[in-house]
Formats: sequence, C-alpha cells, structure tokens
Amino acid sequence: MEKVAVIRKEHFNAAHRLHNPNWTDEKNVSFYGKCNNPNYHGHNYDLEVTVIGEVDQESGYLIDMKTLSDLIKEEVLNKFDHKNLNLDVADFKDLNPTAENIVVVIYDKLKAVLESNLDLEVTLYETPRNFVTYSGQ
Amino acid sequence: MEKVAVIRKEHFNAAHRLHNPNWTDEKNVSFYGKCNNPNYHGHNYDLEVTVIGEVDQESGYLIDMKTLSDLIKEEVLNKFDHKNLNLDVADFKDLNPTAENIVVVIYDKLKAVLESNLDLEVTLYETPRNFVTYSGQ
Amino acid sequence: MEKVAVIRKEHFNAAHRLHNPNWTDEKNVSFYGKCNNPNYHGHNYDLEVTVIGEVDQESGYLIDMKTLSDLIKEEVLNKFDHKNLNLDVADFKDLNPTAENIVVVIYDKLKAVLESNLDLEVTLYETPRNFVTYSGQ
Amino acid sequence: MEKVAVIRKEHFNAAHRLHNPNWTDEKNVSFYGKCNNPNYHGHNYDLEVTVIGEVDQESGYLIDMKTLSDLIKEEVLNKFDHKNLNLDVADFKDLNPTAENIVVVIYDKLKAVLESNLDLEVTLYETPRNFVTYSGQ
Amino acid sequence: MEKVAVIRKEHFNAAHRLHNPNWTDEKNVSFYGKCNNPNYHGHNYDLEVTVIGEVDQESGYLIDMKTLSDLIKEEVLNKFDHKNLNLDVADFKDLNPTAENIVVVIYDKLKAVLESNLDLEVTLYETPRNFVTYSGQ
Amino acid sequence: MEKVAVIRKEHFNAAHRLHNPNWTDEKNVSFYGKCNNPNYHGHNYDLEVTVIGEVDQESGYLIDMKTLSDLIKEEVLNKFDHKNLNLDVADFKDLNPTAENIVVVIYDKLKAVLESNLDLEVTLYETPRNFVTYSGQ
Repeated sequence: MEKVAVIRKEHFNAAHRLHNPNWTDEKNVSFYGKCNNPNYHGHNYDLEVTVIGEVDQESGYLIDMKTLSDLIKEEVLNKFDHKNLNLDVADFKDLNPTAENIVVVIYDKLKAVLESNLDLEVTLYETPRNFVTYSGQ
Repeated sequence: MEKVAVIRKEHFNAAHRLHNPNWTDEKNVSFYGKCNNPNYHGHNYDLEVTVIGEVDQESGYLIDMKTLSDLIKEEVLNKFDHKNLNLDVADFKDLNPTAENIVVVIYDKLKAVLESNLDLEVTLYETPRNFVTYSGQ
Repeated sequence: MEKVAVIRKEHFNAAHRLHNPNWTDEKNVSFYGKCNNPNYHGHNYDLEVTVIGEVDQESGYLIDMKTLSDLIKEEVLNKFDHKNLNLDVADFKDLNPTAENIVVVIYDKLKAVLESNLDLEVTLYETPRNFVTYSGQ
Repeated sequence: MEKVAVIRKEHFNAAHRLHNPNWTDEKNVSFYGKCNNPNYHGHNYDLEVTVIGEVDQESGYLIDMKTLSDLIKEEVLNKFDHKNLNLDVADFKDLNPTAENIVVVIYDKLKAVLESNLDLEVTLYETPRNFVTYSGQ
Repeated sequence: MEKVAVIRKEHFNAAHRLHNPNWTDEKNVSFYGKCNNPNYHGHNYDLEVTVIGEVDQESGYLIDMKTLSDLIKEEVLNKFDHKNLNLDVADFKDLNPTAENIVVVIYDKLKAVLESNLDLEVTLYETPRNFVTYSGQ
Repeated sequence: MEKVAVIRKEHFNAAHRLHNPNWTDEKNVSFYGKCNNPNYHGHNYDLEVTVIGEVDQESGYLIDMKTLSDLIKEEVLNKFDHKNLNLDVADFKDLNPTAENIVVVIYDKLKAVLESNLDLEVTLYETPRNFVTYSGQ
C-alpha cells in the first residue's frame, strides 16, 4: 500500500521573549540578544503540518484537508494566535518559547489527537529565513 | 559516491471534480463538499520532481535539467495541462482525481521513463497551502 | 489628511473556458488555444483588493481588515470559489471569463458595496506569472 | 530625464497591541478583537521602500542600494526591530500602532533624511495577506 | 472604456560588472564595492512587464499573454539570457549595466514593438530584495 | 532526547560557466548549451542549511541562528558572493561549478566546522525552479 504525505500550511501571530530564569540578566542578554527584550517582540509563525500514511482506497484521501485544518485550528491556532506565548499559553509557563521548543509542543499536541497509524512531522517558520522541523524522533 | 537530489519545478492548470460513483449523491456532497461540484472547479497545480542518484564525475550532472524538464513535459504536462482531469485524462477514468491519487499517477509515469538507478519523489501542490508527496514507498 | 492604501489578499479556485460563441470553432481554437478546451480547465485565482482613503483618527484604521475580508467573501468568494465560472456564475453567462473580464466584474461587485469615499483597485492573478489590475478608470 | 523607482525590501519583528485609551475596555475588545490582547501579540513586518527620481548619468544609480539599506536600518530597523512598539518606541506612546499609523510614521522618518528631490513610497506588510501603502499624499 | 493592466512575469540569468571607465580603479572599487569585481558576478533577473490599455470587447483580451510572452522572449530573453551583459549585449557596450540602466533599455526595446495605443511599465528584480521600475516618464 | 532540524536561509550572487576541459568545444556547447557561454552568466543562489541534532535543555537552542548564520557567512558567502566561481574560487579551479558540485563543496566546508554530533543537509537553489540537495550520503 502506498504511503503518501499530506501537508497543510497554517499560520499564527504571537509575541514572545526568550529568557532562562536560572541565568543572570547579563547572561540572558548576552546569549539571547534582542530576543531577550523584557517587553517582548513577535512573529508571524508559519506552520507546515505533514501527515504520513496510507491512502484510503474508497475516498482517495489520506486525511480530509478540512479535518486536518480544523484539528490544527483547535489544538494550535486557537491557543497560540494573537497570544503572548510566555504569558498566555500554559505550555510555556516553565518552558522557554524558542522555535525548537515550540515545534515540539505543537508536535505533541497534534500527535495526541491524530489517529495512531499516521506519522507526523511539523515545520515551524519563525521568520522566512529561520525555521525548525520535528518528527518525533 | 555522493548521492545528490536534483529538483525541478513545473506547473499545469486543470479542472477536476471529486466524486465516488459508488456513493449516493448525498454522501458525495457531504464528504467532498465544494470539491464535488458537478460542473468542476480547478487549480494551478505546482509540481516538484526530485531525482536522487550519483553525480556523473565527467559532466558534473546527476541529470540534465533540460532533459528532466522535457521528460516532465512529455509524460505529465502535455497530458494534464489545460485539461479536465476527469474527462480528458485516461488515468482518471476510474480513479478519483484527489491530490493523493494524482501524485501517485505522476510518480508512476515518471518512474517508468527514468533510468532505473535513479530514485524519485514527487510533490504536488493543489493550492499553496495544500500539498502531497509520494516517493514510491 | 493622509491617504493610505490597505490591501487584502484572498483566493478562490475555479474552472473556466474561454470561448466566443460568435466565432467558429476553428477561430476559437486558433485564438484561445488550450484555454478553449470544451471540458474546461482551472486555476487558483489569487486576489488582491486595494482600498484607498483617509485613516480614521480615532480607530487608526482605514477599514477593518476583518470587514474587508468578510465583504470579499460575501461578494466574490462565495460566488466564485470551487465554481465553474461559465456555468455556475451568472455574470459570465454572456461574458467570456478572461482574466480582464473577471477583474472588472469583481471590481464592480466590490465598488457597489464599499463606502463611496473609498477608492478601489483589484488585482487578479490567474497564474503566478499572468495577472491583471483594474481601478475603474 | 527618465524617472525610475528603486525598491528595497527590509524586515523587522515586533510586538504590538491595538488599543484606544479613550474607549472602554468593552469597546476596545469589540472593535480590535484579538489584536487588543493586553499581553501583546506580534508580527514579522516586511517593509518595501520605494525611492523615485532621476538616474545619475555618471554612476547609473538613482540611489546606492547599500546607502538606502543603511538609511532604513538607522531610521527604522534599529528603532523597531525586536521591540514592543507600544512600550519601546516613542512614536507610539500616544499613537495606536495600527499598520496604517506605522506606515505613516516610517514614511515621515525616511522622508526627513532623503534628499528632497526624491519621492518616496512605503509599503508595510503586517502579514503576507494584510498590507498598507503610503506615499505622502 | 475600461483601462486594464495586464502583467506577465519572465526571467533571465546573466553576468554583469558595474564599472565606469572614466573613473579610476580606486573610485570604481570604492563606489561599486563587490559589484565592481573584474571577473563579473551574476543574477537571476525577474522581469514584470505591465501593458495598459482598453480590453477588446470581442476577444475579452487586452493583449494575448502568449503574444506578450513571445514578444518579451524575442526582444529581451533571447538577447540577455545566459549572457554577460557587458560583453555579449550591444546595448551595454558603452552603458553601465546597473538595474536602473537595464530597466530603461528593456522598456525601450518593448515600447518599440508594442502597439502605440498601449502603455508600458517594466519592473526588474536584480535580487528578491532589490528592484527597479520604469514607465517611460 | 528529541532530534530537531534547524534551517537557515542565506543567499549569494555569482557568475559561472559550465565547461569540461577534456571535451571538445563542440561537445561542451552541445552538452551544456547556453550554460557554456565563455563570457559566463550568473545566478542569485539561495542556500538552505539544515542542522540536525538534540536541543540543549538549558538554552532551548539546537544551535544559535546567529552563530549558524555567521558560520555560513564565513565559510561560504565571503568566498562565493559577488564572485566568478570559475575564476575567483579555488574549489572550482579543477571542478566544474554545476549545482551538484557546488552543493557538495558547500556541504564539505560547513561539515568541517560544525560540531561533530550535528548532522547537516544543504539545499542550493540555482533558480527558483532548479535546485539540489546533499546530506553527505
């Protein structure tokens, strides 16, 4: 049976600040630079969600794109869009919202609600030139 | 010997309709939604063809991009471009032209004419936010 | 008072056929080429709607982007998206759905519902390399 | 003498909140929606700066792109990038940082340092689908 | 009669060097920087050709996109693509191939072959972040 | 421990010529076509550098994007940007600068300076429609 990957792009806008509370202010500024601004800065985050599995012979779909889009809205966009990741999103209460950490959080949220026979990969663009990918490995 | 992937982007425009003749009209409308419109709708399909293999030491090419582009034109674009996939393309006479099914059909057409020592992956964008990938596995 | 232009991008997918019923079939094929396919072909149409006017000093908005997006959905997307322009859209019953004619139809629909003190320009991408612009002049 | 337009694209990332202090909280939430989040949200702002004038016959340049890029960095990026527009940028102390207001502020900053025989137009993308343009008229 | 703008995107790849033979080598290096490299460097030039005029009521076209594309190929791409602008293109024998000068040369070539009732604007991207526009004014 | 991929996009502009000195001029022209122009042509090369490894739990970073960007500048951009690859870059003194050969050279330069526990993949766009990928396998 052929394995196909289906990819859906979504996006959200959010504010964040990179900061490690176990470090001194000096170390935080020196390490994170402008990303440590205590008043926050923000991004248009672009999200690519890849679902991999076998195509259903009856419908010709691996997964309905509307279903996938709704699932991303429910699990990610409704929680992250137009939010301050540090202050408004519980996942980042004790976790630094670097792109690396955000992409793993999003992967875990989506993996939990996807059918178990489907593989998942998540790519998160923080800017058009900086992005990260995670596939649970 | 190094294995390099060479990717060529092409595109075609086509009309299609998603429909399962074994289902009732109600089920077709309910499942495929607007994509079941009996009068068809259409897309600018973007195609990324990835060929993987060893670089020829004499020419410095894995495959000549002109050769690859001509091959895609002959096997895919000439048959699909400015066509109604359901009515004009024999491959979809009994196969629902979902993105998943189209990408497998394109893969099979290209795989048949590529040298056998080359691996192939095909990505098909139905819209800039919905796309599928198939590599024969 | 400063005049600012506010631009909103939307998109729709549709099938169409270019055909002049006053011409012979030979002339239609010769003139419109592949675009004359009697079984239709299709596009992902990208739409850029530019509204020009004075910024409201109280709200800091020229026009609320949500309002503008809803207006485009109501007047254009709900009528054109996933449709066959020739068969499903009354505006093209007797009008050839060339990009030039479509952009004028969209302009007229939006102009009729915009506040009269706002100027309008509409850009329609038929493909990423072919597009048209109309501003009512 | 020919008039040519030269365009340079730059970008910055910032947090902001839309809020009118003369309105009740209810009116602010109702009008600005998610953009009124008191904890801020953010964007990757893309900036297109268009300078219009006559080409210098000796150098073949209207304006050196390096000079234009440095000028944008000095006047805009150094002040806005990785900042909270409401809290960190003096221009928005009493001005709501809507896209419309930001683009006028950027225009005024750049116009003040450009040679007076050059015309200016500024386009600011708040998201890839929402953007504004101002040319001082 | 409505005036519509029709835009066609094309591209070419070329090498060039910025150099003023009336200047000393020191002044050339100091002014043009890396662009003065005597061994040349190169670009993927993207070209947007805008034709403005009245739509023909019979065909629904302002200008056939195939005709426009062929005209650009004949007048520009066949002469510039995969060429060294300084050495291979007669127009730049005594003219410095800055983006500003190239866009005026392209405008003049296309204007000479377009029907006289059509207006023309040409945009040339030297890089995705640096581009120029000329409309003959 | 999760393995994340971090991707940074950079670009450079360069001239090059495809030519095999062991072949006759006729064979070079016949095989490489316009790319064999003895006066060179050029490209805007876009570069995507993917680094794969475990996220540092303390910093939340796999690799600092500023560090990665500086490393690419030092090892690649400073040597390739605004250069003639055949004449100015020692790596291509005896190596034909095809996209396939360039991507392997860039991979080797970056692999040599990356920490050994990190995996690397390099994608090089010669044009937006032609690109190559290499991951050292």
